[in-house]
Amino acid sequence: MLLVVCDGLSDRPVKELGMKTPLQAARKPAMDAMARNGISGTMDVIGPGIIPGSDTAHLALFGYDPHKVYNGRGPIEAVGVGLKVNRGDVAFRCNFGTVDRTMRVTDRRAGRIRSGTGELAKAISGIKIGDITALFKEGSEHRGALVLTGPGLDYRVSDVDPHRESRILESRPLAPEARKTADVVNEYVMKAAAILADHPVNEDRVRNGLPPANIILPRGAGSINELEPMSERYGLTCAAVAGVSLVKGICRMVGMAVPDVPGTTGGTDTDYAAKAKAALELIRTNDFVFVNVKAGDVAGHDGDFRLKLRVVESIDTMLEMILKDLKEDVVVALTCDHSTPVSVRGHSADPVPLTICGGGARIDGVTEFDEISAATGALGRIRGMDLLPTMLGIADRAQKFGA
Amino acid sequence: MLLVVCDGLSDRPVKELGMKTPLQAARKPAMDAMARNGISGTMDVIGPGIIPGSDTAHLALFGYDPHKVYNGRGPIEAVGVGLKVNRGDVAFRCNFGTVDRTMRVTDRRAGRIRSGTGELAKAISGIKIGDITALFKEGSEHRGALVLTGPGLDYRVSDVDPHRESRILESRPLAPEARKTADVVNEYVMKAAAILADHPVNEDRVRNGLPPANIILPRGAGSINELEPMSERYGLTCAAVAGVSLVKGICRMVGMAVPDVPGTTGGTDTDYAAKAKAALELIRTNDFVFVNVKAGDVAGHDGDFRLKLRVVESIDTMLEMILKDLKEDVVVALTCDHSTPVSVRGHSADPVPLTICGGGARIDGVTEFDEISAATGALGRIRGMDLLPTMLGIADRAQKFGA
Repeated sequence: MLLVVCDGLSDRPVKELGMKTPLQAARKPAMDAMARNGISGTMDVIGPGIIPGSDTAHLALFGYDPHKVYNGRGPIEAVGVGLKVNRGDVAFRCNFGTVDRTMRVTDRRAGRIRSGTGELAKAISGIKIGDITALFKEGSEHRGALVLTGPGLDYRVSDVDPHRESRILESRPLAPEARKTADVVNEYVMKAAAILADHPVNEDRVRNGLPPANIILPRGAGSINELEPMSERYGLTCAAVAGVSLVKGICRMVGMAVPDVPGTTGGTDTDYAAKAKAALELIRTNDFVFVNVKAGDVAGHDGDFRLKLRVVESIDTMLEMILKDLKEDVVVALTCDHSTPVSVRGHSADPVPLTICGGGARIDGVTEFDEISAATGALGRIRGMDLLPTMLGIADRAQKFGA
Repeated sequence: MLLVVCDGLSDRPVKELGMKTPLQAARKPAMDAMARNGISGTMDVIGPGIIPGSDTAHLALFGYDPHKVYNGRGPIEAVGVGLKVNRGDVAFRCNFGTVDRTMRVTDRRAGRIRSGTGELAKAISGIKIGDITALFKEGSEHRGALVLTGPGLDYRVSDVDPHRESRILESRPLAPEARKTADVVNEYVMKAAAILADHPVNEDRVRNGLPPANIILPRGAGSINELEPMSERYGLTCAAVAGVSLVKGICRMVGMAVPDVPGTTGGTDTDYAAKAKAALELIRTNDFVFVNVKAGDVAGHDGDFRLKLRVVESIDTMLEMILKDLKEDVVVALTCDHSTPVSVRGHSADPVPLTICGGGARIDGVTEFDEISAATGALGRIRGMDLLPTMLGIADRAQKFGA
């Protein structure tokens, strides 16, 4: 089985495209061939009217109920940037931000700082606060993750990040058991601020007229619910090709192998051919291979429909490379984790198109892969959590219930 | 109301039929007339990606949640062959098999023995083991059922049937309370083996070079969850026309009358006209009549698409006979309990087509009854447990919730 998720590619009508969506307007022979040779439908990745995050969306697409396993985004981001999160740890997503002398946030992203965050992270990682150790690692641009490890922690604490230009907040316990965690976070933020304030990287930035990354802003505290690996849950060997750390983190959480594929950036400049090659290699030795292409989401967030059209065409070329070398009995599903309409510049709750071909897939009359054509397909409208069971069914790997 | 279930008729694209399914390829004017005059959709009989058994599927189609009531196949098979199962009893499905002197199973079906099993069953039925009585009755071919009755039984025991050529297994208790039941089963199997060993039926078989039916292989232990009869649950008088014992058993469990209809075999040689006649007779005096035609499932298991085409046409003729004499206000639903694709030679998780006409049924634009056409219908994609409520709604027998 091969699942290709075009992150955020699904869209809404675009005025400049004559009220067509980018998927309707673009040339995409490989995607359309999949639709023509398979069965299509639309999918509410979480549920009608719920805007999926990339994390919850992927959990659902792998068959895990995000309402049950999702416990704050922190641990997912942390696992994504390469920190280890164990049961009992509390993890946060963080931004590097800029504060003035009164601890008022003047830039939540420190001018979207692009370099030097590795050094900054090193300087503030490993700090001990009582019996708790705080580990910090940088992510892409201004992003990073914080993991607190030690006894008596509880994830139910509020954010330090004010989410707007305002004084930083004190993390508060949201349950009595979380008092210690809130205290540790607050103390850590101040200790880190003291170290960041006169760090050479920031001195350089100030000299160059750039906002210093002189504060970290933890948010999205969470602890990890250990997930039954896909290997045990479905009896499948699984591997993933993904560029962005959040998606990689989810994949690792469900026990997929996530090999590094040079050239896959999680941006619109990703190496599509490298992705195709990696997918084809992994499918030889795995029952289930997952490919995420982030670029459509990036174009959506940028509100750039021209870029999105180009992304559709690039993904189509990637798919063509994969499909021409794939055996007929491989069940291939093509879908999105959520819509990121260029008119919204963010995720939306609109359902996503879905096409499944190969293996025992039925063939309906749908001939194009887009939000509207797919909705006329014989799959009807399903939920994200139904996707993997559906693929298993078409691959004759589903479980029987009854006699 | 009349519900016609074409067991396993739903399929996948067949290469030899130009990637059409047997339903798409066959001539079936009566089925298509139903689609043309009614409303169509597809149905996940249990849920997306779950392969239904015939037992769980029929429970769902009658509106009972199989996850709640299904408790091992034993009791269903037992009720199907005509044994009575009471609360507290433990029932097993059994095969007559062949063992060598070391109790190694050399044939799990005793050469698919076809005659003499009635005598063998009589010889081993009624045996007492302490305060437990073991009742045994033959089913079709090598099949049979065992019911243990008496105090202190518990269904949580493992199978004696090794499910392959290997030594017979000892039934083990899967819960401490089931120790006694496991002991009784093991003792019964050995006592029955001693009786079967030199039974005249088996002496004859050995003389004729056939494998003797010298062991019974219990499996699928279960106890019965008493089900609220359909008469109470829906206020309906109900009757069924079915050939195979498993389906008959389910029908009896939900309180349907299941008259014997001579000529209905549960095979591809069933008397379709007799079925049609019986259905028409029963509909005069019942609110709800259910007809099961097993033949499509048989053709699917045999992997024989030509046979399946013929079965479609035979069922169509049966439907024609029924429809021409049926009053317009009878709500008729046509569907399958699961797909049994000829390419799979077993059940699959693919959704099944559904058409409902008559009574207050809406009329959508669907003109053919098959897996793909039905999916474009106005019923959309529903679950098996929604079928009966939907029929009740169209028949103006649904319950109102609110003012």
